[in-house]
Amino acid sequence: MIIVMQRGATPTQIDNIVARIKALGLGAHLSSGEERVIVGVVGAPLPPTLDDEFESHDGVERVVRITKKYKLTGWDFHPQKTVIKVRDVTIGGDDVVVIAGPCSVESEEQTLATARAVAAAGAKILRGGAYKPRTSPYEFRGLGERGLQILAAAREETGMAIITEVMTPADIDLVGKYTDIFQIGARNSQNYLLLEEVGKAGKPVMIKRGLSMMLEEWLLAAEYVMAQGNPDVILCERGIRTFEPSTRNTFDVSAVPVIQGMSHLPIFVDPSHAAGKRALVGALALAGVAAGADGLMIEVHPNPDQALSDGAQSLTFAQFDALMPRLAAVANAVGRTLPIRETAPVG
Amino acid sequence: MIIVMQRGATPTQIDNIVARIKALGLGAHLSSGEERVIVGVVGAPLPPTLDDEFESHDGVERVVRITKKYKLTGWDFHPQKTVIKVRDVTIGGDDVVVIAGPCSVESEEQTLATARAVAAAGAKILRGGAYKPRTSPYEFRGLGERGLQILAAAREETGMAIITEVMTPADIDLVGKYTDIFQIGARNSQNYLLLEEVGKAGKPVMIKRGLSMMLEEWLLAAEYVMAQGNPDVILCERGIRTFEPSTRNTFDVSAVPVIQGMSHLPIFVDPSHAAGKRALVGALALAGVAAGADGLMIEVHPNPDQALSDGAQSLTFAQFDALMPRLAAVANAVGRTLPIRETAPVG
Amino acid sequence: MIIVMQRGATPTQIDNIVARIKALGLGAHLSSGEERVIVGVVGAPLPPTLDDEFESHDGVERVVRITKKYKLTGWDFHPQKTVIKVRDVTIGGDDVVVIAGPCSVESEEQTLATARAVAAAGAKILRGGAYKPRTSPYEFRGLGERGLQILAAAREETGMAIITEVMTPADIDLVGKYTDIFQIGARNSQNYLLLEEVGKAGKPVMIKRGLSMMLEEWLLAAEYVMAQGNPDVILCERGIRTFEPSTRNTFDVSAVPVIQGMSHLPIFVDPSHAAGKRALVGALALAGVAAGADGLMIEVHPNPDQALSDGAQSLTFAQFDALMPRLAAVANAVGRTLPIRETAPVG
Amino acid sequence: MIIVMQRGATPTQIDNIVARIKALGLGAHLSSGEERVIVGVVGAPLPPTLDDEFESHDGVERVVRITKKYKLTGWDFHPQKTVIKVRDVTIGGDDVVVIAGPCSVESEEQTLATARAVAAAGAKILRGGAYKPRTSPYEFRGLGERGLQILAAAREETGMAIITEVMTPADIDLVGKYTDIFQIGARNSQNYLLLEEVGKAGKPVMIKRGLSMMLEEWLLAAEYVMAQGNPDVILCERGIRTFEPSTRNTFDVSAVPVIQGMSHLPIFVDPSHAAGKRALVGALALAGVAAGADGLMIEVHPNPDQALSDGAQSLTFAQFDALMPRLAAVANAVGRTLPIRETAPVG
Repeated sequence: MIIVMQRGATPTQIDNIVARIKALGLGAHLSSGEERVIVGVVGAPLPPTLDDEFESHDGVERVVRITKKYKLTGWDFHPQKTVIKVRDVTIGGDDVVVIAGPCSVESEEQTLATARAVAAAGAKILRGGAYKPRTSPYEFRGLGERGLQILAAAREETGMAIITEVMTPADIDLVGKYTDIFQIGARNSQNYLLLEEVGKAGKPVMIKRGLSMMLEEWLLAAEYVMAQGNPDVILCERGIRTFEPSTRNTFDVSAVPVIQGMSHLPIFVDPSHAAGKRALVGALALAGVAAGADGLMIEVHPNPDQALSDGAQSLTFAQFDALMPRLAAVANAVGRTLPIRETAPVG
Repeated sequence: MIIVMQRGATPTQIDNIVARIKALGLGAHLSSGEERVIVGVVGAPLPPTLDDEFESHDGVERVVRITKKYKLTGWDFHPQKTVIKVRDVTIGGDDVVVIAGPCSVESEEQTLATARAVAAAGAKILRGGAYKPRTSPYEFRGLGERGLQILAAAREETGMAIITEVMTPADIDLVGKYTDIFQIGARNSQNYLLLEEVGKAGKPVMIKRGLSMMLEEWLLAAEYVMAQGNPDVILCERGIRTFEPSTRNTFDVSAVPVIQGMSHLPIFVDPSHAAGKRALVGALALAGVAAGADGLMIEVHPNPDQALSDGAQSLTFAQFDALMPRLAAVANAVGRTLPIRETAPVG
Repeated sequence: MIIVMQRGATPTQIDNIVARIKALGLGAHLSSGEERVIVGVVGAPLPPTLDDEFESHDGVERVVRITKKYKLTGWDFHPQKTVIKVRDVTIGGDDVVVIAGPCSVESEEQTLATARAVAAAGAKILRGGAYKPRTSPYEFRGLGERGLQILAAAREETGMAIITEVMTPADIDLVGKYTDIFQIGARNSQNYLLLEEVGKAGKPVMIKRGLSMMLEEWLLAAEYVMAQGNPDVILCERGIRTFEPSTRNTFDVSAVPVIQGMSHLPIFVDPSHAAGKRALVGALALAGVAAGADGLMIEVHPNPDQALSDGAQSLTFAQFDALMPRLAAVANAVGRTLPIRETAPVG
Repeated sequence: MIIVMQRGATPTQIDNIVARIKALGLGAHLSSGEERVIVGVVGAPLPPTLDDEFESHDGVERVVRITKKYKLTGWDFHPQKTVIKVRDVTIGGDDVVVIAGPCSVESEEQTLATARAVAAAGAKILRGGAYKPRTSPYEFRGLGERGLQILAAAREETGMAIITEVMTPADIDLVGKYTDIFQIGARNSQNYLLLEEVGKAGKPVMIKRGLSMMLEEWLLAAEYVMAQGNPDVILCERGIRTFEPSTRNTFDVSAVPVIQGMSHLPIFVDPSHAAGKRALVGALALAGVAAGADGLMIEVHPNPDQALSDGAQSLTFAQFDALMPRLAAVANAVGRTLPIRETAPVG
């Protein structure tokens, strides 16, 4: 940590800083430039709020933290890329893994039809919400355990792995009885008790990026899960909130290479929630793969116009079918693989 | 709801829209402008996702929802301003109510000293976190029930009401045993199950605005609480996330008059979290009162430089003492009252 | 235009609205829903600020403009994609066109070396700033006309077309003597007099997106150029300003498909300015091509560590050489072409 | 400047950094922490892009600039608050100075009526646009020199000073013949050639904050003017662009105290452009004064519903008349003065 004193900081102010550093059992290292004194703090561990403390001391202009706040999620202590096995799917390897399915599980019929269609087109994991966070209390909130049973039935039939959202600690046991991967939604991405509890549940966890979450905060959210001894965390970019109204969220595709520089965790993208409009999903999905994403999460529905949630951004079966070979071609172009069924129609 | 068809939408596309509207038991009203056809949807209630559905129909350019999504929180069905009584404090009346106290309850000594100081200066409600949401898992997370007991002791001694944050449904009973007002933090402002559960607990609830929450979403969060039969909701603006790095968050002071135009609920401001820096808290607090806020929430600490959380933005006792008469003067200037003790030193 | 009256608007308020509409020579069409009256405005042309006016009338809740503000840039009156010929380069056709070169023209040597290298790797247009907008007045501001002469010399030798920024109307004639394409920088994207003047200069114009420019505003900026009779406008996404600090700007890759839905104009992406860091440029460039961009603008420098501007985001020759075949592969994967020299080393 | 090397940076990488620093005639100061080496750069002046350069060197993790980029606008070399005299108005002193008038000069009648009304209520400076930047080329663009003459006539009659916008260097001479203060609009706030040229014109300059301008960038824009020898710069906060749609812009009231901590320049606020809605202007104006603003700029129109621009946010004479005593009361409450005519009706 480096403490930059104000131009004109008094010797007493500097002495107070040094005294406080020593009182914490740390070392202080002064260097005097032409304009200001800079105090280096040497030793570890630094109290996590020490920068806040020094920021408010008299005579201090700025405090610069040198060490990263995240540990388990960073490359420094984990130099291998994280690879996660879920049933027979490998996440974080060469294959770009496609998760697809409806926004909400609405019925057995709707979910099984979708599962069959997306599995046939090459998706490996089935998504579907049984518990739905909704902005308004008056909207459809999911089928609950019945939804989980339907997902399990779809897994049984198709052999896909399943992922579904858990919204509150009290539901973890029940959701964990069915799901292969827990999903933490964007609005719960800083619900720290939920992150800790799901970290204890012994299954992989995908954390959606919050609507205005900085990348470092996202890694710290993952840190909550990993600190419980669970190494299997997947990140999923789904768009951030900006001033631009033409998309539901602004798809931050640069999160893919930036996260890959900061962390060993696999990173997925969800073009459906980013776009909010079906016509844009393909372009954003292709962009995500080109940028190096480890996987995709795409909403597909048998009849999107009558979906109980997020219909506007869900692809039809035919659209998904046409998109997959294009995604595979881009994956190949950037040195990845995205195995699809032999007979898929080329879009 | 109004559906604007694309220039060049075909009669079949228009017919399909009309057919779907009628299938829902609603009426369709067509008007043909020079350039486009516009379809009005008549009748109620509209399915909450109907705009999404129509947005994705062929031939549709845009869907405009006319009715508001929020009901209980709006003026339409509740033409009186909400007034909340908590012990002997009236929130939402002529008085600007000041909540003050430390970010975290750290010890009995720290909390009681703060309670005495802020009560003497005119604060009516004591704040203090016993359960703290922290961006990093390695930071101080609060004293838990011991913290709640300390708050209760401070209430006993000073006669102030108390407010403290609840982070998860499982803690509601315990927190509710002690607190007068539940606080929902910014990061939990769209934790819908928490909002519903706290709505059942029979005590007032203050909802902090989320970091990138639009005002309509905020009212919908309040709607979750009110839909459980709890009318006593307070909103608290605490800064939003923008590109500007010089403050921790950007204090959206216009939220005060805008919310007052949309809703009958009292609205407070928290200049401490918005500013993130002690030196700015006074100016933002004054601005909030001038804009018409019903109350303020301000962090105060006996020794901010050594606070376990948010020290950089906490006022000292002397700073708070000096600020209160200035707040009272601005309150008077805008036709409100902010009663402070007779002998407060004028800042 | 549709005027939604407030619940409880009085007949007099409605009559006033209707009277004002008629006074403008337009027609008013009332429809009364269960909750509110809605007034449709029929006829054309609507005064451009009519929505503003009605928003402030008593009894009005909201005004919805149906017709688009942009005309010349939209598909409605121009159903063919714009194709621009510059020397022997075709912009807006099947080929993805690569513009490359240094941020600033620093010397003949630096510029010619770069031109040769990027031309050899497949770039068709040379970029280079002779007039540089800089955040601080104390930074390098470009070589002026000498820079233009150097660009022209590079064109002479390599056969590439050239593009360079013009910052002020007084420079248009001089810059126009040399350049093939005028560039309008992000900070000048709403400098309307500059847009109009450059629109009269008879050469293609590329408009960078402003730092917080909505897509509709961008098309209106292009409209300023096109309204002068110049059909040859190119748009270039270069990142927008958001809360996320890990990139210089947030690359809004969805601008590519959204603009393509709104407008016939070619759209490029500039991954260098979006990323701000060399290591990210490749991933963003690939994402841009995958999303359907008509071209790319990439900064390349012989010795980026010592560039006079934007060195941190400039690629070396070797990096650019390695990137081009990857871009070509992604272009092919999405049905476009990006012709590169036969012997380029595969990255 | 401090260069933080990556964990695991090699001795060669560190040596290269040191060699480059020495080659620039600067000194290097190494300190090795437990985890990383940190290189301090000693000496001055630092090349303005040196941080960029080092950011891209191998082995470097982060570069922290210690000295501020702005000089003339900061307190370090100018410890007195700037006070500007314009005719008989003092800006930057104890008085809160109110600028008021129509968005655009539309006619002599409209402008004179407004000037008389706002002068009578206590405004000291008349605003009014003769050259209007408009998002769309199809909107009213101002009366040009005729507008300037009308402003001058209003000055003649009322004795107020006048301020009006200049949009392009070619207009500076003409506008300067009439105006007392040049206004640089938000969209031109990084039009550096305009800033330099207006800096040479020998009259005070008000710079509106750009829509997504960071405060440091704003000071650097002011630096362009001051570097021409013109010390009389006024800053004006007018709202920034965020995700929140309920106001035209988000009024960043904290810019007032933050700028006052960074710079000696007077800072005004423009609640009209921030709000975009008449009903909010009063609350934001009061908030600005409470936060310590040196002045206000408020749009007033004899008949706002029929204004040619920005009618929705313009106050009527009666509204302005009612607001002024409230502003004066808040000014008093925070230790400032805002002299208004004796007989003003109290709102």
